[in-house]
Amino acid sequence: MGSIGVGLIGTGYMGKCHALAWNAVAPTFGDVDRPRLVHLGEANEALAQAKAAELGFARASGDWRAVIADPEVEIVSITTPNQFHAEMAIAALEAGKHVWCEKPMATSEADAAAMCEAARRSGKVAVLGYNYIQSPAIRQIGRLLAEGAIGAVNHVRVEMDEDFMADQTAPFNWKHDAKSGYGALDDFAVHPLSLLTMLIGPVSSVVCDMAKLGADRALADGGRRAVETHDIAQVLMRFADGVSGALMVNRAAWGRKGRLALQIFGSAGSILFDQERANEFQIYSTSDPAAVQGFRTVLTAPEHEPYGRFVPAPGHGLGFNDLKVIEAREVLRAVADEPARVIDFAAGLAIERTVHAMARSFQTRGWVDVA
Amino acid sequence: MGSIGVGLIGTGYMGKCHALAWNAVAPTFGDVDRPRLVHLGEANEALAQAKAAELGFARASGDWRAVIADPEVEIVSITTPNQFHAEMAIAALEAGKHVWCEKPMATSEADAAAMCEAARRSGKVAVLGYNYIQSPAIRQIGRLLAEGAIGAVNHVRVEMDEDFMADQTAPFNWKHDAKSGYGALDDFAVHPLSLLTMLIGPVSSVVCDMAKLGADRALADGGRRAVETHDIAQVLMRFADGVSGALMVNRAAWGRKGRLALQIFGSAGSILFDQERANEFQIYSTSDPAAVQGFRTVLTAPEHEPYGRFVPAPGHGLGFNDLKVIEAREVLRAVADEPARVIDFAAGLAIERTVHAMARSFQTRGWVDVA
Amino acid sequence: MGSIGVGLIGTGYMGKCHALAWNAVAPTFGDVDRPRLVHLGEANEALAQAKAAELGFARASGDWRAVIADPEVEIVSITTPNQFHAEMAIAALEAGKHVWCEKPMATSEADAAAMCEAARRSGKVAVLGYNYIQSPAIRQIGRLLAEGAIGAVNHVRVEMDEDFMADQTAPFNWKHDAKSGYGALDDFAVHPLSLLTMLIGPVSSVVCDMAKLGADRALADGGRRAVETHDIAQVLMRFADGVSGALMVNRAAWGRKGRLALQIFGSAGSILFDQERANEFQIYSTSDPAAVQGFRTVLTAPEHEPYGRFVPAPGHGLGFNDLKVIEAREVLRAVADEPARVIDFAAGLAIERTVHAMARSFQTRGWVDVA
Amino acid sequence: MGSIGVGLIGTGYMGKCHALAWNAVAPTFGDVDRPRLVHLGEANEALAQAKAAELGFARASGDWRAVIADPEVEIVSITTPNQFHAEMAIAALEAGKHVWCEKPMATSEADAAAMCEAARRSGKVAVLGYNYIQSPAIRQIGRLLAEGAIGAVNHVRVEMDEDFMADQTAPFNWKHDAKSGYGALDDFAVHPLSLLTMLIGPVSSVVCDMAKLGADRALADGGRRAVETHDIAQVLMRFADGVSGALMVNRAAWGRKGRLALQIFGSAGSILFDQERANEFQIYSTSDPAAVQGFRTVLTAPEHEPYGRFVPAPGHGLGFNDLKVIEAREVLRAVADEPARVIDFAAGLAIERTVHAMARSFQTRGWVDVA
Repeated sequence: MGSIGVGLIGTGYMGKCHALAWNAVAPTFGDVDRPRLVHLGEANEALAQAKAAELGFARASGDWRAVIADPEVEIVSITTPNQFHAEMAIAALEAGKHVWCEKPMATSEADAAAMCEAARRSGKVAVLGYNYIQSPAIRQIGRLLAEGAIGAVNHVRVEMDEDFMADQTAPFNWKHDAKSGYGALDDFAVHPLSLLTMLIGPVSSVVCDMAKLGADRALADGGRRAVETHDIAQVLMRFADGVSGALMVNRAAWGRKGRLALQIFGSAGSILFDQERANEFQIYSTSDPAAVQGFRTVLTAPEHEPYGRFVPAPGHGLGFNDLKVIEAREVLRAVADEPARVIDFAAGLAIERTVHAMARSFQTRGWVDVA
Repeated sequence: MGSIGVGLIGTGYMGKCHALAWNAVAPTFGDVDRPRLVHLGEANEALAQAKAAELGFARASGDWRAVIADPEVEIVSITTPNQFHAEMAIAALEAGKHVWCEKPMATSEADAAAMCEAARRSGKVAVLGYNYIQSPAIRQIGRLLAEGAIGAVNHVRVEMDEDFMADQTAPFNWKHDAKSGYGALDDFAVHPLSLLTMLIGPVSSVVCDMAKLGADRALADGGRRAVETHDIAQVLMRFADGVSGALMVNRAAWGRKGRLALQIFGSAGSILFDQERANEFQIYSTSDPAAVQGFRTVLTAPEHEPYGRFVPAPGHGLGFNDLKVIEAREVLRAVADEPARVIDFAAGLAIERTVHAMARSFQTRGWVDVA
Repeated sequence: MGSIGVGLIGTGYMGKCHALAWNAVAPTFGDVDRPRLVHLGEANEALAQAKAAELGFARASGDWRAVIADPEVEIVSITTPNQFHAEMAIAALEAGKHVWCEKPMATSEADAAAMCEAARRSGKVAVLGYNYIQSPAIRQIGRLLAEGAIGAVNHVRVEMDEDFMADQTAPFNWKHDAKSGYGALDDFAVHPLSLLTMLIGPVSSVVCDMAKLGADRALADGGRRAVETHDIAQVLMRFADGVSGALMVNRAAWGRKGRLALQIFGSAGSILFDQERANEFQIYSTSDPAAVQGFRTVLTAPEHEPYGRFVPAPGHGLGFNDLKVIEAREVLRAVADEPARVIDFAAGLAIERTVHAMARSFQTRGWVDVA
Repeated sequence: MGSIGVGLIGTGYMGKCHALAWNAVAPTFGDVDRPRLVHLGEANEALAQAKAAELGFARASGDWRAVIADPEVEIVSITTPNQFHAEMAIAALEAGKHVWCEKPMATSEADAAAMCEAARRSGKVAVLGYNYIQSPAIRQIGRLLAEGAIGAVNHVRVEMDEDFMADQTAPFNWKHDAKSGYGALDDFAVHPLSLLTMLIGPVSSVVCDMAKLGADRALADGGRRAVETHDIAQVLMRFADGVSGALMVNRAAWGRKGRLALQIFGSAGSILFDQERANEFQIYSTSDPAAVQGFRTVLTAPEHEPYGRFVPAPGHGLGFNDLKVIEAREVLRAVADEPARVIDFAAGLAIERTVHAMARSFQTRGWVDVA
């Protein structure tokens, strides 16, 4: 058989990204066998067939369990809506398949814990789709921190802002319903936390506030309904090793489209990053001559692995979808039992628990320790 | 007599700024009589004489009480170290002089309250030197908010960062001593609060955390001493009218030199400003056509009063010291009983109280209402 | 047979990009049949086999003529070194295949003219790989110009700068040899000209200057050799419709990595773009209110077709390689006889002629009309 | 008498700037005696009196010759319209006064040459008001170039753009009349040339093109009149020492307000500057570690003399008018026969000659050597 056999469940935007990544990982990296796209699952047979043709899968089924049962499938990409993650991931793991599941992990802490336990029992690879950690700039920032390029980190600020919920005249939708979760905290906080996990370490305690844009929204069919979620959340954090920080997320921040901005301050310099300009980062170093100290804008380049696998020239830029290709390479590393840069289900559960601690702090109006 | 007679006490950097401003206010604005620089006070006669010649004052004294007692002096600029503000300002007010006193107001809440009371009793003008509120960009932002250019404000983030305390190898100095105050909270928080006072309104409740870079510092003469102040402070805030916000200050943030960054989010747009690029601001408006919505970088221009009093062409830029000239014009307005854009002692006291509430929140580890 | 059969000759970086694009075009756009990767040609059989497995091609040959001869191949991607373009493209066209050939078109004006003539005779699609014209930002700029968003264009400046030739201590290499062409003019000028072709129109006359970094370079085996090419070129241009402009290219500009910067000035506004921040552009419009006029930084978004085919959320960014995927879609349009945004061999020849006119101007030290 | 006695002729914007500078130079620098503002000349007695009171001058006259004749006046600031510069400057020099005359020097090359000759004969200080050379950022760039921070300079690009002539619907005004000069070339080119004079050296040959926005303009009283000047000019340049460069000026570039942008490329790095963000500059150095090479944005600071005379803290920023204060200090140095950073009449004449050579190149459509 040779190369790994891939199953895919779900073909929305993230399903497409997984398919593109599985198609591109061998040409891009040139150091792995081209995965075989074996079996695609969708809600019904016709859609599954059409998508298989488009995405390059050999077989298609209208039942996701057929994907998992396929003996040629060794790893399952799960890109369905969040409420299905737990059931599918646990079933796949129990069937002896590796799992690459999109974030957020699950819709409850209990489900996330069950997924984590299933992964542990199976001994299989179980990875969450936290793509921002794969960016060449973020990886380089990680290397710089590890090398002590800015000395010992003492303070960090993270912002994640978009504006898809900013229009207050738009009617009540499912994201205003408490069933969808807390609001910006679920939607966004997991992403900065994935970066902080990689770059700084675990959060130990938090105090959180949340805010709404307005008390209620128009209903499509007349009348108004109280908004139950919070589009804005902000958190003061302390990390295990004495670092302090702030996390601010806002899904109603007009003008912000994909901002995920990091400010990391250390004893010998500072590092800045913003996902809206993902192909660059900034570093200030006290080792520069005094008269020319300043934030240096570094364009990503072949020096910043694995940028060079995509483009041989510096400053030409990777795109958001390329992050998924890098992630696919890391998943293949994990499957091959090599050291891999991934957020596995255990690390993912820690992120979920941090988010829930933030929500509790908002309820209790005080500091909360992250379990 | 004609034009106003000015006294100046203190000739450090801020004293020089006051002198330059008194010299420049008439040529710059062209709509006020040139103030007469009557009497300068310094720590001793010789220094006072030298400084009077340099700064253009007619008389000089080694005793500040002589400045206040001078019948030709109608307004007193107080630019001495903070611990002298209360005594001098109260004496000047009681002598029937107007007062223009540098911030921070005083070294204790009690002193600030006494100054406020003295001002009230005197009926004289009593203004604090909050210069950032005078910037053409900040004034324009205020106008835009008032006009509803970004709709109803719902969220605000403010950062003030510099790096003069960032070198952890530098020895213990007086700013590490608890006698100097809380740390970054005193040094910096009053500035963003002066802007928030003008642009958003009063803060109603806060939760605050503070952090140190290290537990102790080397002493100049050997040994080490525990650091008693906090170079980093961060605060979650709620405003009287439901707006939420965060305030982050750091006087040990490598690479930040004069950052005072505002992010203001509203129902129809957003506004950004950073004092390090004080001659521009950014606005995002949902009324722009969808395909070309983005943050617009607006260079300050004659449209942004009183920029045009300084330079007739847009985009040429004002400097930090020019803010003091604008402030001088506003002080003269207040003296003339015209509407003036100033932080008077009453508004200044409210700012001080907000800072003290933040410090209490850090002690109590919970939310604190601003009295 | 259904979907189009693809042949690929050459598997260097651009070959890889073509392969990735052929793999990705159907999943990304969702509106074309997935092309069949039929036949890959490389310099020898073994390399061809290995690359076919990696890139997903069904067959492989050590002789490029086998690719062209393959009856299942309907279109040939030519990504070999420039000196082979003419022979291969002409052969493919004569064999009745469509051709998608990387730029630069050819190593001589005569070859380029022959390619153009072969394309004309064949009636087949013959497209050059000018990828920058495909960027969502550039396309949006084109739409804005067409809509008159900045009025009538009167002036344009273009810069293309990188630094891969900047190290003067590096030894003489083939790019310093006159056999490689003029220098920066060949390497770079075609790219900005492809953009100007799309956005402004044809150049009518030019005056050009060129410069070297140094007279000679060290030879790897000792001694020095005169540098025969010019790393810097700069050109004043007039366009057919009265627009004036400047073109500056420099392949030895330290710090520039992928700069391709456009400044377009019109009667009602201006537009700026820089490929180093390819996911944004700037527009200044005189229709904005006077007090808030400024350059607006617009992040690319689903509004800017075909960004939305890649990512549903604005501000998340495309990468350099994604441009090739868009180009593949346009090539398929051309094959289907639909209006397509491409630089065909005729337009490519006009670009080549403009470059040669610039070189002549440098020789004659005067203005030269573009034929 | 002690300190220097100052006369001022003209009280428009530049006259105000001179007055402010004479008022501020002693307090700001603290190392010179406060100049005595002796005598102000304006078009009539009443205006002169009013302006003297506002600007702080002791005496006033409606005849500029009275200023020059005043025995207490040792230096004359000439800030009248350009056509008066030659007569006034020559008269002042012949009267044995030092002269500080605003740019542009004169309205003809002959007048400029006569001024230069008068200065030479008088042995007095004769300085032109080229303020941009005084900026702390530009001065620091000069120091960096002199230190070899970017190695040997090989290429330079300069742009100067504003938009005050951009509105094509505005009626014909005096700047469209050939009597006002060439257009953008007179208005703007002298400024970048003053910087190039300081930073790079003399221009040896040029080829220039110029362009108009439109052929004619509406007349205020009906009808239209042909536009005789060019709002756009662009020049390729060679410098005496083999450096190549381009100069582009445009007074009709929508959105540009005070852009004066420099790009300087050297063998070991690059330096960028833009007057619209005058309180920062950028440097790229090949001596930085490869993985973090990038353009460093340096905020001006006390390290960049004489920034620290204005503000003790870095990153707080100087304004456009502050440049005149620095210039005043340099003028006083020249008067004291100390080394001074100024463009004297001889250097100014060389700048004028370069501009006229550019204009001749446009006429002859070829390269022109600068005499």
